[in-house]
Amino acid sequence: MASSMIFTDCSSSTASPLIHFNRRSSNTFLLRQCVGQLRLRTTTAPGRGCSLSIRCSSSPNPSNSDSEALAKVIDGKAVAKTVRDEITIEVSRMKESIGVVPGLAVVLVGDRKDSATYVRNKKKACESVGIKSFEVRLGEDSSEEEVLKSVLSFNDDPSVHGILVQLPLPSHMDEQNILNAVSIEKDVDGFHPLNIGRLAMRGREPLFVPCTPKGCIELLHRYNIEIKGKTAVVIGRSNIVGMPAALLLQREDATVTIIHSRTKNPEEITREADIIISAVGQPNMVRGSWIKPGAVLIDVGINPVEDLSAPRGYRLVGDICYEEACKVASAITPVPGGVGPMTIAMLLSNTLTSAKRIHNFQ
Amino acid sequence: MASSMIFTDCSSSTASPLIHFNRRSSNTFLLRQCVGQLRLRTTTAPGRGCSLSIRCSSSPNPSNSDSEALAKVIDGKAVAKTVRDEITIEVSRMKESIGVVPGLAVVLVGDRKDSATYVRNKKKACESVGIKSFEVRLGEDSSEEEVLKSVLSFNDDPSVHGILVQLPLPSHMDEQNILNAVSIEKDVDGFHPLNIGRLAMRGREPLFVPCTPKGCIELLHRYNIEIKGKTAVVIGRSNIVGMPAALLLQREDATVTIIHSRTKNPEEITREADIIISAVGQPNMVRGSWIKPGAVLIDVGINPVEDLSAPRGYRLVGDICYEEACKVASAITPVPGGVGPMTIAMLLSNTLTSAKRIHNFQ
Repeated sequence: MASSMIFTDCSSSTASPLIHFNRRSSNTFLLRQCVGQLRLRTTTAPGRGCSLSIRCSSSPNPSNSDSEALAKVIDGKAVAKTVRDEITIEVSRMKESIGVVPGLAVVLVGDRKDSATYVRNKKKACESVGIKSFEVRLGEDSSEEEVLKSVLSFNDDPSVHGILVQLPLPSHMDEQNILNAVSIEKDVDGFHPLNIGRLAMRGREPLFVPCTPKGCIELLHRYNIEIKGKTAVVIGRSNIVGMPAALLLQREDATVTIIHSRTKNPEEITREADIIISAVGQPNMVRGSWIKPGAVLIDVGINPVEDLSAPRGYRLVGDICYEEACKVASAITPVPGGVGPMTIAMLLSNTLTSAKRIHNFQ
Repeated sequence: MASSMIFTDCSSSTASPLIHFNRRSSNTFLLRQCVGQLRLRTTTAPGRGCSLSIRCSSSPNPSNSDSEALAKVIDGKAVAKTVRDEITIEVSRMKESIGVVPGLAVVLVGDRKDSATYVRNKKKACESVGIKSFEVRLGEDSSEEEVLKSVLSFNDDPSVHGILVQLPLPSHMDEQNILNAVSIEKDVDGFHPLNIGRLAMRGREPLFVPCTPKGCIELLHRYNIEIKGKTAVVIGRSNIVGMPAALLLQREDATVTIIHSRTKNPEEITREADIIISAVGQPNMVRGSWIKPGAVLIDVGINPVEDLSAPRGYRLVGDICYEEACKVASAITPVPGGVGPMTIAMLLSNTLTSAKRIHNFQ
């Protein structure tokens, strides 16, 4: 279910599936720009880069050159299910012990279908683990003040432990202003600069870790992949995925390099990495030749490529050329079914954490 | 003068000259620990590492193997003087235009001689550029409440634009609590997590950039050393120097790797870098063999090594083996006289910036 949910999220996006990770819409452009630059600089297939014509399997297919595949598949769908099951138990333990049910509130403004779908999926995910969901829907033409009023009312509501403002907001509103209004204790997205600062600093603890990068690290943990002492490359430096993922790896004692649009030799640097997290939104950019044998690959990209044989006329692929990578790497996340399902699981986890903290429940 | 000031700062320290950069004293241990690990992993001189017995010139000496030295010396003392002269002009322009004089307040608690020296030097530096300095001295046995009261009173004082609490504080006080009381608009150290978060995030601007890393980048700028597109290695990940230096390099579009105690192959990684910033406090750790020909080296370490021929029985050396490095690098900061003088210059610069911002003066 989680996988198809992500799929639905993506298919309903008008721009790019990465919009799912780009709730701060200003970053979409940066990512796109980044990708363009990276393509220019890659040398694996001069003139073509990792073009869409290269057919990489978008998911682990046992019938497809199985004998050559070395990599263990990191099954995000299964891990996300385990995480949700754990959350379900904790939510019910909390309810029984102190009578508190964690609550997640979403503020949805306007009539975008994709936004409505995201919100519906989050609501379903909450229900599935016993988290109470709250929702305010406001019309496209509502004022900034009305939105602010909703946010502030959730800030004050003791049954709400996490608040999400679904982006994008209508263009007549100051997005930053509205996001800044969310109480830092309930900012389950973890994008507040104070949280990012604490994430960067040794000896400090963020209140929340952003969901997608948290999901990446959780996958490594659940598969007992050692991070300490390893070299790691993060491809992409968005505020939402790349940068916090790099800070998390650094906190776990990896030696981290962030590759971005201005990096001159991305292939060469990537080839040195024991762990690669790619979050640029460029289909099949990371080729087999970029990968050190035995590396662990976490693919955050969910990119649609035209495929007339697919029911919807397209299929989803990651940033990493799966077919090539699985012959070189020791472990890899598929797309879909890798990082995707982890994002909502981590949102639920952050909401639970928030409720526990607010009610001082261990 | 600036150089001897730093020298005095260091010589008066009971622990390590890096205490100068470690106003958050909890980091001293981290740096030390880091260094120990790095020594274990270096392979240049197995069993000895970069031992103190290796004689590297601690400053550029024209009479000493000059013919072999390729590197341009990055003269921090001269740049700091230029910066201070620019600040002097701006301070006087501000005074003439709007009648406001920037003010820096220092809270000094207890009787530590080294702390008293630092505070005196800051006061002198302020006077030299026309910044007004304020000071509160409290006894060793004063209460946390008294210190907090002083901080809060400076927060409210419109003639104060920057506040420093001189560390370490007496052990019966909660340092974090006191530091958190400093208004973020006057936190000229730039160590507040909100500032660090903004530094890490694309599209956000910190109110203040921490002084030492800011000084490193300023040296690169003043010597027209391109950062964009370059590979950079930062050795050391302290909250005060290494981590913010890496974030600054990243903001300027370098591809940055942070090396730390858990990094397995520091030499190899460092050898790939176009720009190296070292901030670990380990004398002569970075040897000639670690350096890519033509690299630019910024040495933040100021380490005392025994030298019975020196007037005080020791001399100061950097983290980088100067004598070897200057034959390989294209540019290098000496120790002393490199980054050291820049730190106080940047503190003055931050105080001026703060005053300009508060009074909306361009």
